[in-house]
Parts: sequence; C-alpha cells; structure tokens
Amino acid sequence: MIHTATAVLGRRGSSIGSRKLGALFAGAALFGAALASSATADEPLPSWNDGDAKARIVAFVDAVTTERGPQFVPPTERIATFDNDGCLWAEQPAYFQLLFALDRVRALAADHPDWKTTEPYKSVIAGDMPGLMATGKEGLVKIMLVAHADMTAKEFAASVREWLATARHPTTGKPYTQMVYQPMLELLAYLRANGFKTFIVSGGGIDFMRVFAEEVYGIPPEQVVGSTIDAKFELRDGVPTIVKEGKIVLVDDKVGKPVGIYRHIGRRPIFAAGNSDGDLQMLQYATIPRDAHDATPAFGMIVHHTDGQREWAYDRESHIGQLDKALDEAPRRGWLVVDMAQDWKQIFPTAE
Amino acid sequence: MIHTATAVLGRRGSSIGSRKLGALFAGAALFGAALASSATADEPLPSWNDGDAKARIVAFVDAVTTERGPQFVPPTERIATFDNDGCLWAEQPAYFQLLFALDRVRALAADHPDWKTTEPYKSVIAGDMPGLMATGKEGLVKIMLVAHADMTAKEFAASVREWLATARHPTTGKPYTQMVYQPMLELLAYLRANGFKTFIVSGGGIDFMRVFAEEVYGIPPEQVVGSTIDAKFELRDGVPTIVKEGKIVLVDDKVGKPVGIYRHIGRRPIFAAGNSDGDLQMLQYATIPRDAHDATPAFGMIVHHTDGQREWAYDRESHIGQLDKALDEAPRRGWLVVDMAQDWKQIFPTAE
Repeated sequence: MIHTATAVLGRRGSSIGSRKLGALFAGAALFGAALASSATADEPLPSWNDGDAKARIVAFVDAVTTERGPQFVPPTERIATFDNDGCLWAEQPAYFQLLFALDRVRALAADHPDWKTTEPYKSVIAGDMPGLMATGKEGLVKIMLVAHADMTAKEFAASVREWLATARHPTTGKPYTQMVYQPMLELLAYLRANGFKTFIVSGGGIDFMRVFAEEVYGIPPEQVVGSTIDAKFELRDGVPTIVKEGKIVLVDDKVGKPVGIYRHIGRRPIFAAGNSDGDLQMLQYATIPRDAHDATPAFGMIVHHTDGQREWAYDRESHIGQLDKALDEAPRRGWLVVDMAQDWKQIFPTAE
Repeated sequence: MIHTATAVLGRRGSSIGSRKLGALFAGAALFGAALASSATADEPLPSWNDGDAKARIVAFVDAVTTERGPQFVPPTERIATFDNDGCLWAEQPAYFQLLFALDRVRALAADHPDWKTTEPYKSVIAGDMPGLMATGKEGLVKIMLVAHADMTAKEFAASVREWLATARHPTTGKPYTQMVYQPMLELLAYLRANGFKTFIVSGGGIDFMRVFAEEVYGIPPEQVVGSTIDAKFELRDGVPTIVKEGKIVLVDDKVGKPVGIYRHIGRRPIFAAGNSDGDLQMLQYATIPRDAHDATPAFGMIVHHTDGQREWAYDRESHIGQLDKALDEAPRRGWLVVDMAQDWKQIFPTAE
C-alpha cells in the first residue's frame, strides 16, 4: 500500500517557518490540552478500559510516588522511555518516516531529471514498490539519504514540518500527527503528572521526531533519542549553521537502544514501553535487576497490535514491528502486554 | 605540577557503591542547599560584586522572564549551556580529568608489570611529566584509554567516584569537587529559579562529568553533554551491561560543541557561558542572529581568568584553556567578559 502515499510536497511553495508551527499542530495541541486536564482528574487514563493493564500501571505509579513507601523512587530517577513507531503512533502500512522519504524523492524529482532512469529513484517516482524493494537495503538507504542528509538542519526541519502539515495517511486519510494513540498520550501525561520525565527512545530519526514530539506528545527535543546521522557546524555567510551529513552515528534500535539511553539520558529508566523486538534490549535494560540486592522498581510494557478492526493486527510474522522474542520473554520478566483490542476504549484521538 | 597529583587509588579497597555517594558529596550538597535559598532570596548572585557584569546578567534574566515583555522567552526555550573546565570548576595546573587518568594508570600499575618499561606508562609511574609530554598526543590518548575504555559503565563510574572522594588538588589540597566556582553555582541556581534548564556542554568526558554533575552543580545526567566514546550493550551472565569502548563518537569542543548541542538538546541555547576558544563556536551558535528578522534574546558570557592571587591568571598564551580568538570577538558580539578578580567576591565555596 506504500504506493498510495501522496506526494504533495512538489505542489507546495517554499518551506514553512517555525512561526506557523502552532497552526499546523493546532489539532494536536487541542487534544494535548484535553489530556492535561484528564491526567490530573480523579480517574486517570480515561481511554483505557478498566482491567488488569490499567490497574497494573496505576499500581506501579502509586507505589513509586508514595513517599516513605517501600518502592518510593525520587522524582529525578523517574525516567520513562517510549518507543515511537507502533508504540506512540502507528507504523502501518510502512514506517511513516519511510513514507516521508518517498514523498521527498517525488517532490525533488523535478530537480533531478536523471532519477527517471536511475534506480532506486525511478521505482519511487513510478510508484513501483516491488521495483524499489528489488533494489534492497542499498536502495532504501539511498532514498533515506536524499530526504535526510546533505542539507542544513533548518532545511530538514522545514521539509518535515511541511510534509506533516500536508501529507495524509494512505488508508485513513488522516494527517500523520493524528495517527497517534490516545491511550498512550494519556499515559505520557499521567506519568508526567506524577513526576516522571518522559523520553522517546526510537529507531526513528532523532531529528525527524523532534519536529513534532513537543507539540504532539509534550516531549521536548532534548528528551527525544533516536537514530542519528553525523552533523557539522559552520558559519555560512556569517550565520551559524548545522549541516546534516550522511554518516550514521547511532542506530537506536535493538542493542542500540540501551546505548542511546546511556548516551543521552545517563541513567536507567524505571518505566519502558515498546511494541516490537526492536525494544527487547531496552525492556531488559530497564527491568532486569543488576544483582541480587537490586530491588529498583521497574515497569516494562509491550503494546500488542491485536486490533485488525480499529488499527492493525500483527506480531510474530510481520516485517514491520515484528514482535516475537519480546513476546516470549514478557511473562518471564513480568512485562505488561497491552492487548489493544481489549484494553483500549479508543485508539486514535477524536477528530476536532 | 602534574607530577604532584596523588595516586591514592592504589591504596584503596574495592569500588564504592552509589549508596555512599551522598556521603562523598556531603560538602557539595551543603553548599547546594545554601545556594537554593540564596537564589530565591531578594538579592541574587551574592558572590558577585555589584557592577556591570552582575547587572547585565540580572537585566537579561528579567527581560526574558517578563511576561508580555518584548523579550519574553517561554520556559521551554530557556536553554542555558555551560562549559565545565575553567568555567564551572578550575582547570589548572592541568585538566582534572587528565589528573584522574594519570592517577588511574598509577593505581593499575601493579597489574601491569610491563608498564614499568613501556612508554607512556613508564613516565607516568615515575612522575616524569617531561617524559610523558615527549610521547606526544599518542601517549596522552593511551593514558586516557586506560582510564576510560574497555570496562563497564558501572566500573568506570565507580572509579571516578572513588577518585573524587579521595584525590586532592595538587596545589590547594582540596577535593576536586570543591574546586568549583561559587559565583557560577549561584548563577546556575539563579537561572533555574527563573525557569531555565541548565546544561553542561564541555570538552570533558560525558561519563566522567555525569558522576558528579548532579550533586555538585544540580545538573542531572541527561543535561550533561561532553566528549563521547562508543559503548555497547550486552547481557553479561544475564545482567544488562553497558561496556565502554575506545572509539570516539563526539569531540565536544570548538566546532563540536554546536554539534553536541544539536545532537543532545536539539534547540538553540539563549544563554551560553565558556572561558576559552573551545567555547567560541558555542557562543556563536547561541548568540548570532540567524537572519535579519531574528530578534531572539541571547546572552554570551566568557569567564576571564584574571585572578592570579585567588585562582590563576591566563588567557592568550596558555596551553590550557587558551582564550584568544573568543576574547577578540567578545566586544563585537556583545558577550559579557567576566573579570574574575573584579567581578567575584569569592572564588571557591567556603569550606564547611
């Protein structure tokens, strides 16, 4: 279904300045405001059905915030880390950042006439996804580099902002920033209302997510950890400029997630949420005791995509967000497996 | 004077657990508490003499925190970045982290009999600093790797903690955590009391500084940015373990500082403080307008080491903390140059 992603960037004018950002995210900001009140109201997590999942989350938060209680954790150590794709927002029919990159190639095609006859660009422009897939990992890397490297940080952020403002999800027709999970927005707000510092730790690009994480999730850029490519600094015509380059500095996935946490956060999370085997090591890092005396309270959580009606249903066999090893390990580690169909009253935010 | 640094680690027992950290930093915590009250009292910055420097800092903070004022900056964007060596703590007669590394080599020498006859270790063990210097940059890198690489993150942090608890500065005889600048501690607290988020952005090692930054400066690990070597994650006998490796991922100095800020913070600071040419690009990044319409308020500050009596006096010709280009650029950019001898009533915290 990738080929139905619209390529609207090419029909738009120049980049959108940050002053307009507020308007672009008005929808997100609205449900953000609704959240802030719901989280502090008597009943937390209103979009979660009453049941084991909700009860376990609330019990954990109560335990670590009860002063003089046996499981009390001081606020500075209440670190919570969340995967993004498939955990905070959807990831089907393909990672949204890949859809962004495909749209960028189409938008830039007019300036690169040679792309019409050169793979992998040729297949992207023609909407020939089997053709693109035939170019393999090397082809996908080229596509990602077109959209992410050899430009200033400002130009990149503007291109993401414009795409988020105009692109629509291929099957739901919604803006991507409305493909976020309402129950997870509530969970983020609930944790913050209880003194947690919430972080994204995702295989997605750090600079890509930072464009919308604050407005959509209430997570500021300095609390977003993701896959990272190199950058350099220069004065360009006297103006301080960050230039994004192509060398990968961190693949923030699988074993890379604890490394990203160590590098950016510098301490162990006590709450970690993911949805795939890419999150396995982060869940291990957060929850496995370090020695026989380690009684640090810790909560691991997996969002299980079980709702083919309201969202998508996939796990062990999926090429996107494969959940296999982590699902096997969950019972042994005591990780909460959230059943989207059973545990969530509502998946996406109500449209304004 | 490097050779007078004491090598006490070798005489100590095993590593000190994090539970004892509070005791080790009791002194620092005490002046931290004193600070918290001073910063919120009527007169901020009590260790700063009344004069232009203090007045300019206070005027800037007043301007960006005055709601509906023309220079108001929302709290989420009140990012302040501080260099560490020579800005928050002293850096003479050598960077303290180098003194740590030299002490580590001496502490580990018994396990490496070959070091007695092999450079650069031989010179370090003999206290022969000209001999060490003759081994050049390559020799220094080897010394730093002994102290920082090929060990777990936990082992490294324990070694730093133990060194800080036991080592004494070669000329003052003080613990290194008391070689911090009282006026800068007050400035950090004053900014935080006014809604700023304070960060360290230093050429020093990120993992080294994180061991003491929270207790000594009130800056949590996730707000410490520094030079970084690679790390990997593994389950070691079933226990989540971060292993520090030797490959440099970021040299957080000069042009590397804006890159470190972009990578870890993801937005432009509005307050930046340094003391050497290593901070020049950070000061440029924070303060130079991006275009003709950019009126973002920004404050650049240089701590000028002018006090040979109470601290050290050095600038253009110094091998440590050289301040030359940035000093020339300061008037043109409007950066505040703090004259330690004139502007500071007191340099170091009063001993308890």
